[in-house]
Amino acid sequence: MRFSLTSRTSTDGVTEQPFTLGEIPGVLFTPQGATGPRPLILMGHGGGQHKKAPGVLAGAYRFAAEGGFAVVAIDAPNHGDRPKDERFVQFAGDMRARMAAGEDPTGLVAAMHELLAGQAVADWQAVLTAVQGLDHVGAGPVGYWGVSMGCGLGLPLLATEPRIHAAVLGLLGVQGLAETAARVTVPVQFLLQWDDTRVPRDRALALFDALGSADKTLHANPGDHGGIPAFETDDALQFFTRHLGMRSGASRRGTGSSIS
Amino acid sequence: MRFSLTSRTSTDGVTEQPFTLGEIPGVLFTPQGATGPRPLILMGHGGGQHKKAPGVLAGAYRFAAEGGFAVVAIDAPNHGDRPKDERFVQFAGDMRARMAAGEDPTGLVAAMHELLAGQAVADWQAVLTAVQGLDHVGAGPVGYWGVSMGCGLGLPLLATEPRIHAAVLGLLGVQGLAETAARVTVPVQFLLQWDDTRVPRDRALALFDALGSADKTLHANPGDHGGIPAFETDDALQFFTRHLGMRSGASRRGTGSSIS
Repeated sequence: MRFSLTSRTSTDGVTEQPFTLGEIPGVLFTPQGATGPRPLILMGHGGGQHKKAPGVLAGAYRFAAEGGFAVVAIDAPNHGDRPKDERFVQFAGDMRARMAAGEDPTGLVAAMHELLAGQAVADWQAVLTAVQGLDHVGAGPVGYWGVSMGCGLGLPLLATEPRIHAAVLGLLGVQGLAETAARVTVPVQFLLQWDDTRVPRDRALALFDALGSADKTLHANPGDHGGIPAFETDDALQFFTRHLGMRSGASRRGTGSSIS
Repeated sequence: MRFSLTSRTSTDGVTEQPFTLGEIPGVLFTPQGATGPRPLILMGHGGGQHKKAPGVLAGAYRFAAEGGFAVVAIDAPNHGDRPKDERFVQFAGDMRARMAAGEDPTGLVAAMHELLAGQAVADWQAVLTAVQGLDHVGAGPVGYWGVSMGCGLGLPLLATEPRIHAAVLGLLGVQGLAETAARVTVPVQFLLQWDDTRVPRDRALALFDALGSADKTLHANPGDHGGIPAFETDDALQFFTRHLGMRSGASRRGTGSSIS
Protein backbone atom coordinates (compact mmCIF):
# COMPACT_ATOMS: atom_id res chain seq x y z
CA MET A 1 0.00 0.00 0.00
CA ARG A 2 1.22 3.46 -0.86
CA PHE A 3 1.88 5.63 2.22
CA SER A 4 1.44 9.30 1.36
CA LEU A 5 2.14 11.74 4.17
CA THR A 6 1.20 15.30 3.25
CA SER A 7 2.52 18.66 4.45
CA ARG A 8 2.39 19.56 8.09
CA THR A 9 0.68 22.36 9.99
CA SER A 10 1.28 23.18 13.65
CA THR A 11 -1.05 24.66 16.26
CA ASP A 12 -0.75 24.79 20.06
CA GLY A 13 2.53 22.90 20.03
CA VAL A 14 1.19 20.01 17.96
CA THR A 15 1.97 19.15 14.34
CA GLU A 16 -0.78 17.54 12.24
CA GLN A 17 0.12 15.48 9.18
CA PRO A 18 -2.81 14.14 7.15
CA PHE A 19 -1.97 10.95 5.27
CA THR A 20 -3.41 8.17 3.18
CA LEU A 21 -2.26 4.58 3.33
CA GLY A 22 -3.81 2.88 0.31
CA GLU A 23 -7.46 3.82 0.76
CA ILE A 24 -7.23 4.63 4.47
CA PRO A 25 -7.32 8.35 5.36
CA GLY A 26 -5.59 9.29 8.59
CA VAL A 27 -3.90 12.03 10.58
CA LEU A 28 -0.66 11.84 12.51
CA PHE A 29 -0.23 14.17 15.50
CA THR A 30 3.24 14.74 16.99
CA PRO A 31 4.73 17.32 19.35
CA GLN A 32 5.91 20.30 17.30
CA GLY A 33 9.54 19.84 16.30
CA ALA A 34 9.56 16.17 17.35
CA THR A 35 12.59 14.14 16.31
CA GLY A 36 13.43 10.56 17.23
CA PRO A 37 11.29 7.67 18.47
CA ARG A 38 8.43 8.05 20.93
CA PRO A 39 5.46 6.02 22.20
CA LEU A 40 2.47 5.95 19.85
CA ILE A 41 -1.26 6.05 20.63
CA LEU A 42 -3.82 4.80 18.10
CA MET A 43 -7.19 6.57 18.46
CA GLY A 44 -10.37 4.92 17.17
CA HIS A 45 -13.44 7.18 16.80
CA GLY A 46 -17.10 6.41 17.67
CA GLY A 47 -19.90 5.30 15.35
CA GLY A 48 -20.90 7.94 12.79
CA GLN A 49 -17.80 10.00 13.68
CA HIS A 50 -14.47 10.39 11.91
CA LYS A 51 -10.70 10.78 12.48
CA LYS A 52 -10.98 14.43 13.54
CA ALA A 53 -14.16 14.22 15.67
CA PRO A 54 -13.98 16.57 18.68
CA GLY A 55 -13.43 13.76 21.23
CA VAL A 56 -10.52 12.39 19.19
CA LEU A 57 -8.93 15.79 18.58
CA ALA A 58 -9.14 16.83 22.24
CA GLY A 59 -7.30 13.69 23.32
CA ALA A 60 -4.81 13.72 20.44
CA TYR A 61 -3.68 17.29 21.16
CA ARG A 62 -3.18 16.68 24.86
CA PHE A 63 -1.46 13.30 24.40
CA ALA A 64 0.98 14.90 21.92
CA ALA A 65 1.52 18.30 23.57
CA GLU A 66 1.58 17.22 27.23
CA GLY A 67 2.60 13.58 26.98
CA GLY A 68 5.11 13.81 24.14
CA PHE A 69 3.33 10.95 22.33
CA ALA A 70 2.77 10.43 18.63
CA VAL A 71 -0.95 9.92 17.99
CA VAL A 72 -2.60 8.50 14.89
CA ALA A 73 -6.31 8.58 14.03
CA ILE A 74 -7.88 7.02 10.96
CA ASP A 75 -11.38 6.92 9.47
CA ALA A 76 -13.00 3.57 10.26
CA PRO A 77 -14.43 1.59 7.33
CA ASN A 78 -17.58 3.34 5.99
CA HIS A 79 -16.82 6.46 8.01
CA GLY A 80 -15.41 9.94 7.39
CA ASP A 81 -13.84 10.35 3.94
CA ARG A 82 -14.26 6.66 3.02
CA PRO A 83 -16.96 5.32 0.69
CA LYS A 84 -20.01 3.68 2.27
CA ASP A 85 -21.07 0.22 1.05
CA GLU A 86 -24.68 -0.87 0.64
CA ARG A 87 -24.75 -3.29 3.53
CA PHE A 88 -23.47 -0.64 5.93
CA VAL A 89 -26.03 1.91 4.73
CA GLN A 90 -28.79 -0.65 5.30
CA PHE A 91 -27.51 -1.41 8.83
CA ALA A 92 -27.20 2.24 9.76
CA GLY A 93 -30.74 2.95 8.53
CA ASP A 94 -32.18 0.02 10.52
CA MET A 95 -30.32 1.18 13.62
CA ARG A 96 -31.61 4.73 13.38
CA ALA A 97 -35.16 3.47 12.87
CA ARG A 98 -35.00 1.17 15.88
CA MET A 99 -33.55 3.87 18.11
CA ALA A 100 -36.21 6.35 16.95
CA ALA A 101 -38.86 3.75 17.83
CA GLY A 102 -37.40 3.49 21.33
CA GLU A 103 -36.20 -0.08 20.79
CA ASP A 104 -32.99 -1.51 22.19
CA PRO A 105 -30.39 -1.26 19.39
CA THR A 106 -27.75 -3.26 21.29
CA GLY A 107 -27.92 -6.34 19.07
CA LEU A 108 -27.70 -4.30 15.90
CA VAL A 109 -24.79 -2.26 17.25
CA ALA A 110 -22.90 -5.48 17.98
CA ALA A 111 -23.68 -6.83 14.50
CA MET A 112 -22.50 -3.58 12.90
CA HIS A 113 -19.20 -3.69 14.78
CA GLU A 114 -18.74 -7.31 13.74
CA LEU A 115 -19.37 -6.31 10.12
CA LEU A 116 -16.59 -3.70 10.29
CA ALA A 117 -14.10 -5.43 12.58
CA GLY A 118 -12.19 -7.52 10.05
CA GLN A 119 -11.35 -4.55 7.84
CA ALA A 120 -10.75 -2.24 10.82
CA VAL A 121 -8.19 -4.60 12.36
CA ALA A 122 -6.33 -4.98 9.05
CA ASP A 123 -6.36 -1.18 8.59
CA TRP A 124 -4.86 -0.54 12.02
CA GLN A 125 -2.17 -3.18 11.57
CA ALA A 126 -1.08 -1.65 8.25
CA VAL A 127 -1.19 1.91 9.65
CA LEU A 128 0.82 0.89 12.70
CA THR A 129 3.56 -0.60 10.52
CA ALA A 130 3.65 2.43 8.21
CA VAL A 131 3.66 5.06 10.95
CA GLN A 132 6.31 3.30 13.02
CA GLY A 133 8.58 3.54 9.97
CA LEU A 134 8.74 7.32 10.37
CA ASP A 135 11.80 8.79 12.11
CA HIS A 136 9.76 10.94 14.51
CA VAL A 137 7.57 8.00 15.59
CA GLY A 138 9.74 4.86 15.51
CA ALA A 139 9.09 1.41 16.95
CA GLY A 140 8.36 2.41 20.57
CA PRO A 141 5.55 1.15 22.83
CA VAL A 142 2.01 1.46 21.45
CA GLY A 143 -1.33 2.23 23.13
CA TYR A 144 -4.92 2.24 21.86
CA TRP A 145 -7.73 4.65 22.81
CA GLY A 146 -11.31 4.05 21.69
CA VAL A 147 -14.78 4.18 23.26
CA SER A 148 -18.20 3.10 21.95
CA MET A 149 -17.53 1.86 18.36
CA GLY A 150 -13.86 2.64 19.02
CA CYS A 151 -14.05 -0.01 21.75
CA GLY A 152 -16.05 -2.43 19.61
CA LEU A 153 -13.38 -2.31 16.88
CA GLY A 154 -10.51 -1.97 19.35
CA LEU A 155 -11.18 -5.19 21.26
CA PRO A 156 -10.67 -7.48 18.20
CA LEU A 157 -7.54 -5.47 17.39
CA LEU A 158 -6.14 -5.89 20.92
CA ALA A 159 -7.05 -9.59 20.90
CA THR A 160 -4.91 -10.25 17.81
CA GLU A 161 -2.20 -7.55 17.63
CA PRO A 162 0.71 -8.07 20.04
CA ARG A 163 2.34 -4.69 19.34
CA ILE A 164 -0.26 -2.83 21.48
CA HIS A 165 0.64 -2.64 25.18
CA ALA A 166 -2.19 -0.71 26.91
CA ALA A 167 -5.67 0.58 26.08
CA VAL A 168 -8.35 3.02 27.18
CA LEU A 169 -11.73 1.54 26.21
CA GLY A 170 -15.39 1.77 27.26
CA LEU A 171 -18.94 2.96 26.56
CA LEU A 172 -19.95 -0.46 25.28
CA GLY A 173 -21.77 -3.57 26.48
CA VAL A 174 -20.65 -7.18 26.49
CA GLN A 175 -22.97 -8.39 23.71
CA GLY A 176 -21.02 -10.41 21.12
CA LEU A 177 -17.70 -9.49 22.72
CA ALA A 178 -17.22 -11.74 25.76
CA GLU A 179 -14.82 -14.15 24.07
CA THR A 180 -12.87 -11.41 22.33
CA ALA A 181 -12.57 -9.44 25.59
CA ALA A 182 -11.28 -12.52 27.40
CA ARG A 183 -8.37 -12.66 24.92
CA VAL A 184 -7.29 -9.10 25.78
CA THR A 185 -4.54 -9.22 28.39
CA VAL A 186 -2.88 -5.78 28.28
CA PRO A 187 -3.63 -3.15 30.96
CA VAL A 188 -6.99 -1.46 30.30
CA GLN A 189 -8.66 1.67 31.65
CA PHE A 190 -12.40 1.19 30.96
CA LEU A 191 -14.79 4.17 30.88
CA LEU A 192 -18.45 3.72 31.81
CA GLN A 193 -21.15 6.37 31.87
CA TRP A 194 -23.42 5.61 34.83
CA ASP A 195 -26.58 6.98 33.14
CA ASP A 196 -25.82 5.82 29.59
CA THR A 197 -29.14 5.56 27.71
CA ARG A 198 -27.49 3.63 24.86
CA VAL A 199 -25.52 1.06 26.85
CA PRO A 200 -27.28 -0.76 29.73
CA ARG A 201 -25.16 -0.41 32.88
CA ASP A 202 -25.11 -4.13 33.70
CA ARG A 203 -23.86 -5.01 30.21
CA ALA A 204 -21.06 -2.44 30.38
CA LEU A 205 -20.05 -3.80 33.81
CA ALA A 206 -20.14 -7.30 32.28
CA LEU A 207 -17.78 -6.22 29.47
CA PHE A 208 -15.32 -4.84 32.04
CA ASP A 209 -15.68 -8.11 33.93
CA ALA A 210 -15.02 -10.15 30.77
CA LEU A 211 -11.67 -8.49 29.99
CA GLY A 212 -8.82 -10.96 30.42
CA SER A 213 -6.41 -8.30 31.70
CA ALA A 214 -5.04 -8.74 35.22
CA ASP A 215 -4.46 -4.96 35.33
CA LYS A 216 -7.75 -3.28 34.49
CA THR A 217 -9.51 -0.28 36.05
CA LEU A 218 -13.11 0.79 35.64
CA HIS A 219 -13.77 4.55 35.70
CA ALA A 220 -17.50 5.24 36.00
CA ASN A 221 -18.96 8.75 35.96
CA PRO A 222 -22.51 10.12 36.10
CA GLY A 223 -24.08 11.21 32.82
CA ASP A 224 -25.16 9.90 29.43
CA HIS A 225 -23.19 8.29 26.57
CA GLY A 226 -21.56 11.48 25.31
CA GLY A 227 -20.82 12.99 28.72
CA ILE A 228 -17.36 11.68 29.67
CA PRO A 229 -15.90 14.35 31.98
CA ALA A 230 -12.86 16.28 30.74
CA PHE A 231 -10.72 15.04 33.64
CA GLU A 232 -10.82 11.54 32.14
CA THR A 233 -8.38 12.87 29.53
CA ASP A 234 -5.98 13.70 32.40
CA ASP A 235 -6.46 10.17 33.68
CA ALA A 236 -5.90 8.65 30.22
CA LEU A 237 -2.71 10.68 29.84
CA GLN A 238 -1.52 9.45 33.24
CA PHE A 239 -2.45 5.84 32.33
CA PHE A 240 -0.59 5.92 28.99
CA THR A 241 2.41 7.60 30.60
CA ARG A 242 2.51 4.88 33.26
CA HIS A 243 2.38 2.06 30.71
CA LEU A 244 4.15 3.48 27.65
CA GLY A 245 6.62 5.93 29.19
CA MET A 246 7.48 9.51 28.12
CA ARG A 247 6.35 12.84 29.67
CA SER A 248 9.58 13.48 31.58
CA GLY A 249 10.04 16.79 29.79
CA ALA A 250 13.56 16.21 28.51
CA SER A 251 12.82 13.84 25.65
CA ARG A 252 9.42 15.27 24.96
CA ARG A 253 10.36 17.37 21.98
CA GLY A 254 13.16 17.51 19.47
CA THR A 255 15.50 20.44 19.31
CA GLY A 256 13.57 22.00 16.49
CA SER A 257 15.43 22.84 13.33
CA SER A 258 16.14 19.57 11.52
CA ILE A 259 12.74 17.99 10.96
CA SER A 260 12.72 14.84 8.86
CA MET B 1 -9.98 20.57 74.71
CA ARG B 2 -6.25 20.87 75.20
CA PHE B 3 -4.30 20.71 71.90
CA SER B 4 -0.81 19.41 72.51
CA LEU B 5 1.45 19.25 69.48
CA THR B 6 4.74 17.47 70.19
CA SER B 7 8.16 17.78 68.64
CA ARG B 8 8.66 17.16 64.96
CA THR B 9 10.71 14.65 63.02
CA SER B 10 11.29 14.73 59.28
CA THR B 11 11.87 11.92 56.81
CA ASP B 12 11.70 11.89 53.00
CA GLY B 13 10.71 15.53 52.84
CA VAL B 14 7.78 15.15 55.24
CA THR B 15 7.53 16.40 58.83
CA GLU B 16 5.50 14.32 61.32
CA GLN B 17 4.05 15.96 64.43
CA PRO B 18 2.22 13.63 66.82
CA PHE B 19 -0.46 15.39 68.85
CA THR B 20 -3.31 14.89 71.28
CA LEU B 21 -6.48 16.92 71.29
CA GLY B 22 -8.19 16.10 74.56
CA GLU B 23 -8.28 12.29 74.41
CA ILE B 24 -7.82 12.05 70.64
CA PRO B 25 -4.34 10.91 69.49
CA GLY B 26 -3.31 12.11 66.04
CA VAL B 27 -0.45 12.87 63.69
CA LEU B 28 0.01 15.91 61.46
CA PHE B 29 2.06 15.48 58.28
CA THR B 30 3.34 18.57 56.41
CA PRO B 31 5.97 19.15 53.73
CA GLN B 32 9.34 19.67 55.42
CA GLY B 33 9.92 23.35 56.10
CA ALA B 34 6.29 24.26 55.35
CA THR B 35 5.20 27.79 56.21
CA GLY B 36 1.87 29.45 55.52
CA PRO B 37 -1.57 28.05 54.70
CA ARG B 38 -2.17 25.00 52.51
CA PRO B 39 -5.01 22.60 51.71
CA LEU B 40 -5.61 19.92 54.33
CA ILE B 41 -6.51 16.24 53.91
CA LEU B 42 -8.11 14.28 56.77
CA MET B 43 -7.29 10.55 56.60
CA GLY B 44 -9.56 8.01 58.31
CA HIS B 45 -8.14 4.50 58.80
CA GLY B 46 -9.88 1.14 58.36
CA GLY B 47 -11.44 -1.12 61.01
CA GLY B 48 -8.91 -2.59 63.43
CA GLN B 49 -6.22 -0.21 62.11
CA HIS B 50 -4.81 3.04 63.51
CA LYS B 51 -3.55 6.50 62.56
CA LYS B 52 -0.21 5.20 61.26
CA ALA B 53 -1.43 2.07 59.47
CA PRO B 54 0.57 1.40 56.27
CA GLY B 55 -2.24 2.48 53.91
CA VAL B 56 -2.63 5.77 55.74
CA LEU B 57 1.11 6.45 55.96
CA ALA B 58 1.70 5.73 52.26
CA GLY B 59 -0.96 8.23 51.23
CA ALA B 60 -0.02 10.84 53.85
CA TYR B 61 3.63 10.93 52.76
CA ARG B 62 2.81 11.30 49.08
CA PHE B 63 0.04 13.88 49.63
CA ALA B 64 2.44 16.00 51.73
CA ALA B 65 5.69 15.51 49.79
CA GLU B 66 4.30 15.58 46.24
CA GLY B 67 1.07 17.53 46.65
CA GLY B 68 2.21 20.10 49.21
CA PHE B 69 -0.82 19.25 51.40
CA ALA B 70 -1.08 19.12 55.17
CA VAL B 71 -2.45 15.72 56.20
CA VAL B 72 -3.92 14.73 59.55
CA ALA B 73 -4.71 11.21 60.75
CA ILE B 74 -6.32 10.31 64.08
CA ASP B 75 -7.14 7.09 65.91
CA ALA B 76 -10.85 6.33 65.53
CA PRO B 77 -12.84 5.67 68.72
CA ASN B 78 -11.82 2.29 70.23
CA HIS B 79 -8.81 2.06 67.91
CA GLY B 80 -5.04 2.59 68.12
CA ASP B 81 -3.92 4.22 71.37
CA ARG B 82 -7.48 4.84 72.58
CA PRO B 83 -9.22 2.77 75.28
CA LYS B 84 -11.75 0.16 74.14
CA ASP B 85 -15.21 0.12 75.72
CA GLU B 86 -17.13 -3.04 76.52
CA ARG B 87 -19.76 -2.71 73.85
CA PHE B 88 -17.12 -2.33 71.15
CA VAL B 89 -15.18 -5.36 72.39
CA GLN B 90 -18.41 -7.39 72.30
CA PHE B 91 -19.18 -6.23 68.73
CA ALA B 92 -15.66 -6.94 67.49
CA GLY B 93 -15.75 -10.44 68.99
CA ASP B 94 -19.13 -11.20 67.38
CA MET B 95 -17.85 -9.96 64.03
CA ARG B 96 -14.72 -12.10 64.12
CA ALA B 97 -16.80 -15.16 65.08
CA ARG B 98 -19.26 -14.61 62.23
CA MET B 99 -16.51 -14.11 59.70
CA ALA B 100 -14.69 -17.22 60.93
CA ALA B 101 -17.96 -19.14 60.49
CA GLY B 102 -18.17 -17.95 56.90
CA GLU B 103 -21.26 -15.81 57.58
CA ASP B 104 -21.95 -12.44 55.98
CA PRO B 105 -20.76 -9.81 58.48
CA THR B 106 -22.22 -6.87 56.51
CA GLY B 107 -25.01 -6.06 58.96
CA LEU B 108 -22.68 -6.18 61.94
CA VAL B 109 -20.11 -3.99 60.15
CA ALA B 110 -22.82 -1.39 59.50
CA ALA B 111 -23.97 -1.54 63.14
CA MET B 112 -20.39 -1.14 64.37
CA HIS B 113 -19.84 1.94 62.19
CA GLU B 114 -23.11 3.40 63.46
CA LEU B 115 -21.95 2.80 67.03
CA LEU B 116 -18.75 4.77 66.40
CA ALA B 117 -20.02 7.45 64.02
CA GLY B 118 -21.30 10.03 66.51
CA GLN B 119 -18.01 10.21 68.40
CA ALA B 120 -15.93 9.98 65.19
CA VAL B 121 -17.71 12.95 63.60
CA ALA B 122 -17.29 15.07 66.75
CA ASP B 123 -13.59 14.09 66.90
CA TRP B 124 -12.93 15.12 63.29
CA GLN B 125 -14.74 18.43 63.70
CA ALA B 126 -12.68 19.32 66.77
CA VAL B 127 -9.41 18.19 65.12
CA LEU B 128 -10.18 20.17 61.97
CA THR B 129 -10.70 23.35 63.99
CA ALA B 130 -7.54 22.81 66.04
CA VAL B 131 -5.27 21.94 63.11
CA GLN B 132 -6.50 24.80 60.94
CA GLY B 133 -5.40 27.15 63.73
CA LEU B 134 -1.75 26.29 63.02
CA ASP B 135 0.26 28.72 60.88
CA HIS B 136 1.58 26.03 58.54
CA VAL B 137 -1.91 24.61 57.91
CA GLY B 138 -4.38 27.52 58.04
CA ALA B 139 -8.00 27.67 56.92
CA GLY B 140 -7.59 26.45 53.32
CA PRO B 141 -9.74 23.91 51.44
CA VAL B 142 -10.20 20.52 53.12
CA GLY B 143 -10.47 16.98 51.72
CA TYR B 144 -11.22 13.62 53.33
CA TRP B 145 -9.71 10.22 52.48
CA GLY B 146 -11.09 7.01 53.98
CA VAL B 147 -11.98 3.51 52.77
CA SER B 148 -13.77 0.61 54.48
CA MET B 149 -14.44 1.84 58.05
CA GLY B 150 -12.83 5.13 57.01
CA CYS B 151 -15.69 5.42 54.50
CA GLY B 152 -18.33 4.30 57.01
CA LEU B 153 -17.26 7.02 59.44
CA GLY B 154 -16.45 9.52 56.69
CA LEU B 155 -19.90 9.58 55.11
CA PRO B 156 -21.69 10.88 58.25
CA LEU B 157 -18.89 13.45 58.61
CA LEU B 158 -19.27 14.63 55.00
CA ALA B 159 -23.06 14.72 55.39
CA THR B 160 -22.86 17.17 58.29
CA GLU B 161 -19.57 19.10 58.01
CA PRO B 162 -19.57 21.86 55.37
CA ARG B 163 -15.81 22.61 55.66
CA ILE B 164 -14.91 19.45 53.64
CA HIS B 165 -14.85 19.99 49.86
CA ALA B 166 -13.87 16.65 48.27
CA ALA B 167 -13.43 13.03 49.33
CA VAL B 168 -11.86 9.73 48.33
CA LEU B 169 -14.04 6.93 49.74
CA GLY B 170 -14.86 3.28 49.03
CA LEU B 171 -14.55 -0.40 49.98
CA LEU B 172 -17.96 -0.39 51.62
CA GLY B 173 -21.54 -1.41 50.82
CA VAL B 174 -24.73 0.60 50.97
CA GLN B 175 -26.20 -1.10 54.04
CA GLY B 176 -27.41 1.47 56.58
CA LEU B 177 -25.84 4.32 54.62
CA ALA B 178 -28.19 5.14 51.71
CA GLU B 179 -29.73 8.21 53.35
CA THR B 180 -26.43 9.50 54.68
CA ALA B 181 -24.77 9.03 51.27
CA ALA B 182 -27.59 10.94 49.58
CA ARG B 183 -26.76 13.96 51.77
CA VAL B 184 -23.13 14.00 50.53
CA THR B 185 -22.81 16.48 47.68
CA VAL B 186 -19.07 17.20 47.37
CA PRO B 187 -16.98 15.60 44.58
CA VAL B 188 -16.14 11.98 45.44
CA GLN B 189 -13.68 9.45 44.03
CA PHE B 190 -15.02 6.04 45.11
CA LEU B 191 -12.76 2.96 45.20
CA LEU B 192 -14.20 -0.51 44.67
CA GLN B 193 -12.34 -3.82 44.67
CA TRP B 194 -13.95 -6.01 42.01
CA ASP B 195 -13.26 -9.29 43.88
CA ASP B 196 -13.84 -7.99 47.42
CA THR B 197 -14.75 -10.97 49.62
CA ARG B 198 -15.91 -8.68 52.44
CA VAL B 199 -18.09 -6.26 50.47
CA PRO B 200 -20.55 -7.69 47.91
CA ARG B 201 -20.00 -5.97 44.55
CA ASP B 202 -23.63 -5.01 44.02
CA ARG B 203 -23.83 -3.32 47.44
CA ALA B 204 -20.67 -1.31 46.81
CA LEU B 205 -22.04 -0.24 43.40
CA ALA B 206 -25.28 0.71 45.19
CA LEU B 207 -23.38 2.90 47.66
CA PHE B 208 -21.67 4.72 44.77
CA ASP B 209 -25.10 5.09 43.17
CA ALA B 210 -26.58 6.49 46.41
CA LEU B 211 -24.06 9.33 46.73
CA GLY B 212 -25.78 12.69 46.22
CA SER B 213 -22.71 14.20 44.52
CA ALA B 214 -23.14 15.38 40.92
CA ASP B 215 -19.37 14.95 40.47
CA LYS B 216 -18.49 11.40 41.50
CA THR B 217 -16.20 8.83 39.89
CA LEU B 218 -16.04 5.12 40.56
CA HIS B 219 -12.61 3.49 40.28
CA ALA B 220 -12.92 -0.30 40.30
CA ASN B 221 -9.90 -2.63 40.22
CA PRO B 222 -9.50 -6.41 40.32
CA GLY B 223 -8.54 -7.95 43.64
CA ASP B 224 -9.74 -8.40 47.21
CA HIS B 225 -10.50 -5.88 49.97
CA GLY B 226 -6.90 -5.05 50.82
CA GLY B 227 -5.58 -4.97 47.26
CA ILE B 228 -6.07 -1.39 46.08
CA PRO B 229 -3.34 -0.84 43.44
CA ALA B 230 -0.61 1.67 44.24
CA PHE B 231 -1.54 3.84 41.25
CA GLU B 232 -4.78 4.77 43.00
CA THR B 233 -2.64 6.96 45.25
CA ASP B 234 -1.51 8.85 42.11
CA ASP B 235 -5.15 9.21 41.15
CA ALA B 236 -6.14 10.40 44.64
CA LEU B 237 -3.34 12.98 44.55
CA GLN B 238 -4.56 14.18 41.16
CA PHE B 239 -8.16 14.29 42.43
CA PHE B 240 -7.30 16.32 45.55
CA THR B 241 -5.09 18.65 43.54
CA ARG B 242 -7.94 19.25 41.09
CA HIS B 243 -10.43 20.05 43.85
CA LEU B 244 -8.32 21.59 46.61
CA GLY B 245 -5.49 23.22 44.64
CA MET B 246 -1.71 23.19 45.36
CA ARG B 247 1.05 21.14 43.66
CA SER B 248 2.32 23.95 41.42
CA GLY B 249 5.79 23.62 42.93
CA ALA B 250 6.27 27.24 43.93
CA SER B 251 4.09 27.32 47.02
CA ARG B 252 4.70 23.70 47.88
CA ARG B 253 7.25 24.27 50.58
CA GLY B 254 8.38 27.10 52.79
CA THR B 255 11.83 28.59 52.48
CA GLY B 256 13.10 26.49 55.32
CA SER B 257 14.77 28.26 58.23
CA SER B 258 12.01 30.00 60.17
CA ILE B 259 9.60 27.24 61.16
CA SER B 260 6.78 28.32 63.43
